[in-house]
Amino acid sequence: MRYTLLGLLLALFCPLARAQEAQTEDAFFIRKLYDQTLTNSSCSDWLQYLTRRIGGRLSGTPQAAAAVEYTYQMLDTLGLDTVWLQPVMVPHWERGEPEQVRIVNSLKMGSIDLNALSLGNSIGTGPRGLTAPVVEVRTLEEADSLGEQLRGKIVFFNTPMDPTELNTFNAYGKAAGARVYGASRASKYGAVGALVRSLTTRLDDIPHTGSTVYTEDALPIPALAISTLDAELLSQLLKEEPVRVYLRNTSRMLGEKLSYNVIGEIRGSVHPEEIILVGGHLDSWDVGTGAHDDGAGCVHAMEVLRQIKLAGYRPKRTIRCVLFMNEENGLRGGRAYWEWSDAGQEYHTAAIESDRGGFTPRGFTVDGHDEVFNAKFKKAIEWLPLLEPYGLSFRKGGSGADISGLKSQKGLLFGFEPDSQRYFDYHHTPIDGPDVVNRRELELGAAAMLSLVYLIDKYGLEVE
Amino acid sequence: MRYTLLGLLLALFCPLARAQEAQTEDAFFIRKLYDQTLTNSSCSDWLQYLTRRIGGRLSGTPQAAAAVEYTYQMLDTLGLDTVWLQPVMVPHWERGEPEQVRIVNSLKMGSIDLNALSLGNSIGTGPRGLTAPVVEVRTLEEADSLGEQLRGKIVFFNTPMDPTELNTFNAYGKAAGARVYGASRASKYGAVGALVRSLTTRLDDIPHTGSTVYTEDALPIPALAISTLDAELLSQLLKEEPVRVYLRNTSRMLGEKLSYNVIGEIRGSVHPEEIILVGGHLDSWDVGTGAHDDGAGCVHAMEVLRQIKLAGYRPKRTIRCVLFMNEENGLRGGRAYWEWSDAGQEYHTAAIESDRGGFTPRGFTVDGHDEVFNAKFKKAIEWLPLLEPYGLSFRKGGSGADISGLKSQKGLLFGFEPDSQRYFDYHHTPIDGPDVVNRRELELGAAAMLSLVYLIDKYGLEVE
Repeated sequence: MRYTLLGLLLALFCPLARAQEAQTEDAFFIRKLYDQTLTNSSCSDWLQYLTRRIGGRLSGTPQAAAAVEYTYQMLDTLGLDTVWLQPVMVPHWERGEPEQVRIVNSLKMGSIDLNALSLGNSIGTGPRGLTAPVVEVRTLEEADSLGEQLRGKIVFFNTPMDPTELNTFNAYGKAAGARVYGASRASKYGAVGALVRSLTTRLDDIPHTGSTVYTEDALPIPALAISTLDAELLSQLLKEEPVRVYLRNTSRMLGEKLSYNVIGEIRGSVHPEEIILVGGHLDSWDVGTGAHDDGAGCVHAMEVLRQIKLAGYRPKRTIRCVLFMNEENGLRGGRAYWEWSDAGQEYHTAAIESDRGGFTPRGFTVDGHDEVFNAKFKKAIEWLPLLEPYGLSFRKGGSGADISGLKSQKGLLFGFEPDSQRYFDYHHTPIDGPDVVNRRELELGAAAMLSLVYLIDKYGLEVE
Repeated sequence: MRYTLLGLLLALFCPLARAQEAQTEDAFFIRKLYDQTLTNSSCSDWLQYLTRRIGGRLSGTPQAAAAVEYTYQMLDTLGLDTVWLQPVMVPHWERGEPEQVRIVNSLKMGSIDLNALSLGNSIGTGPRGLTAPVVEVRTLEEADSLGEQLRGKIVFFNTPMDPTELNTFNAYGKAAGARVYGASRASKYGAVGALVRSLTTRLDDIPHTGSTVYTEDALPIPALAISTLDAELLSQLLKEEPVRVYLRNTSRMLGEKLSYNVIGEIRGSVHPEEIILVGGHLDSWDVGTGAHDDGAGCVHAMEVLRQIKLAGYRPKRTIRCVLFMNEENGLRGGRAYWEWSDAGQEYHTAAIESDRGGFTPRGFTVDGHDEVFNAKFKKAIEWLPLLEPYGLSFRKGGSGADISGLKSQKGLLFGFEPDSQRYFDYHHTPIDGPDVVNRRELELGAAAMLSLVYLIDKYGLEVE
């Protein structure tokens, strides 16, 4: 950067000019980071490898182990100060043979096979399957109100995602309770199985898996998702006649396995004790190849470190990339990391998780401990003029599951927020593959996170 | 809407409260328009028909005629006040047999067929084709500087789109000159053919067509686009050895045909003389099925009128949907419309064109006559608080080719601006089909245009 004499004098003696000078310098540097990321990035190649070569990376599988090894190696090529594996015990759930969900001997339609996937963590029906009458409900509360009427039944949670929610994550949040807790709730009243409508705004034949949680107050029963078109069909048929469904899945929990979070960091030159975390989760569901969920988030985080090195930027604070294991069906990686970090009396001044796909960036959700949130958020908001030219904004909201436990350290937590319209077209399905991730959109996500990391690193988030 | 007594008194006697009341009412109504569009829209079905059933709609073809007929019929079902066809003579260009572009007898690679498409309006090589040495240039200016060295050559305009432009339309604007004027510029110096690098930021095997314009100062020569990967290959090979290329295409201009703009309107109840136009263009290229370009824009505009009727909203001003013919290779529909409108002393207080695809809305570009632009733009900006919750903003910039000629009427011109990242993955290619248009994103576009139309209609854009 060249200075005129006047500019130099102004910069030295006038605080306002100094602030403007800094802002201009920041604008140039962020522009440089974007240019560099859009012309020289590895995130797309990494994602291709994770998805096409390795594939679905369910916790405990050989693919998850391969992803640990691969990303460790890739981080190790970046010239970071440290790259390491953090051991974590994870559940190993197995889907088993292809699921069968069949409407049996309908008067109007005969027998019909539905498009179905076991929910993650589901138990199996046993090899012979089970057949029972179906009862449809919209909500967990409706299941409660039917109570003993559910005994011996398969409870069908037909909870559509609300299409009028502009942010599809809000619609997901409103509808996901039935998937997570439906089986246990139904079981409490003696139900023998649970079917849930897939969580997507689309009407199509693609079933969406996702975790179910067995609460301690009920016996586990098999839980499966059916496609939205099949949910519509089943619902329509139930209006016309009693319906019996045959379920068969051989899913089972195999016990725990050793796995790892993959971590790499550049140590801060001035405040190494202030950690800025960027992360995603390395595991995915077994169907599909986890491209948007969350291969994209992993390569975003890795690319941030790569670009920092490429730019020759020496961070004041410690920049750490964490690829968490087991977000999908246990959050063991996140929990292990928080415990370890707390035990070592670490301090995360900021953490940014990318777990909403690789779409065009819109900004970041921001969360934090009540005691510090307002003051720190105010500080971050001052950077908005530098981020808005890139279509980025901040809004209050949850950050990401893997970093949520860091809130007690009282730093600021960010969730990278890309455009949400297409995410639930692919989420937890066989079609979440690299062909539905756009290279530029992916790169822009890395650049957005990188720019925020740069600003946090340069100015810090600590308040007096 | 229910009023409390206090609210009523405030609303009657306090202008500020009245303004707030109006804004709350507007916010509710816009929310209702969004809800309605996201739960009950026809735009996706219309687009399926236009693309899957009718297909590519190049001016002068039977498909273009079928699209006129279909959209006329669809508008006619909406209960509008008038639906009519406006005659317009259009050029009828024919691509002819599949194009051949072949590197001939390379020392290193033998003969290689490249992925190519004739540019729209291009003449043919004749049935035997032509073979000539290739000269690579980056820009029209570089062609000028080589001058007579281009005689007898095929000039290869290898102009990549700049990946660092965040808005891909800016990159397109910077690179498109070579496609539009390259052939004529090269011909001025005696070149026998022109090859252009396809206009996309992707590296792939898909050639992108688009119009070339033969200027009057040079003989027409054949002009074809090659895919970006083939452009890279050709460029690399040219660094290593002289390259000769064989071109063969049988493209030709067949003369003019009668076609139509399709128009439907709801007549204003208070200011019928103030027209608010919403539009897109009905023609597309012959390759692909013109889903994003510009089936999406047509169904956006049609949906705006459909939703107005569905909401039972009676507009004060005339709301007119215009589906323009021949935007791609002549702009005859636009020109005919402007002339007719000017001759009838019409006044378009606003016109909104959607011709940037069916992606998630980001806002509108705004343009207008110098004499009135600032005052009217200021008025529109007051509505931003009502549009920002939907991710919409305004920025100064060109509106759309089909409405550009309305600027002399001194209304405000808007270009609907969706996210631009993926547009040039599909633009003018065989893969611009309905499968790459997301239903929600398409619906959100219609809702965005609808909301703007509502505000213009309710408050007007006229300034004292």
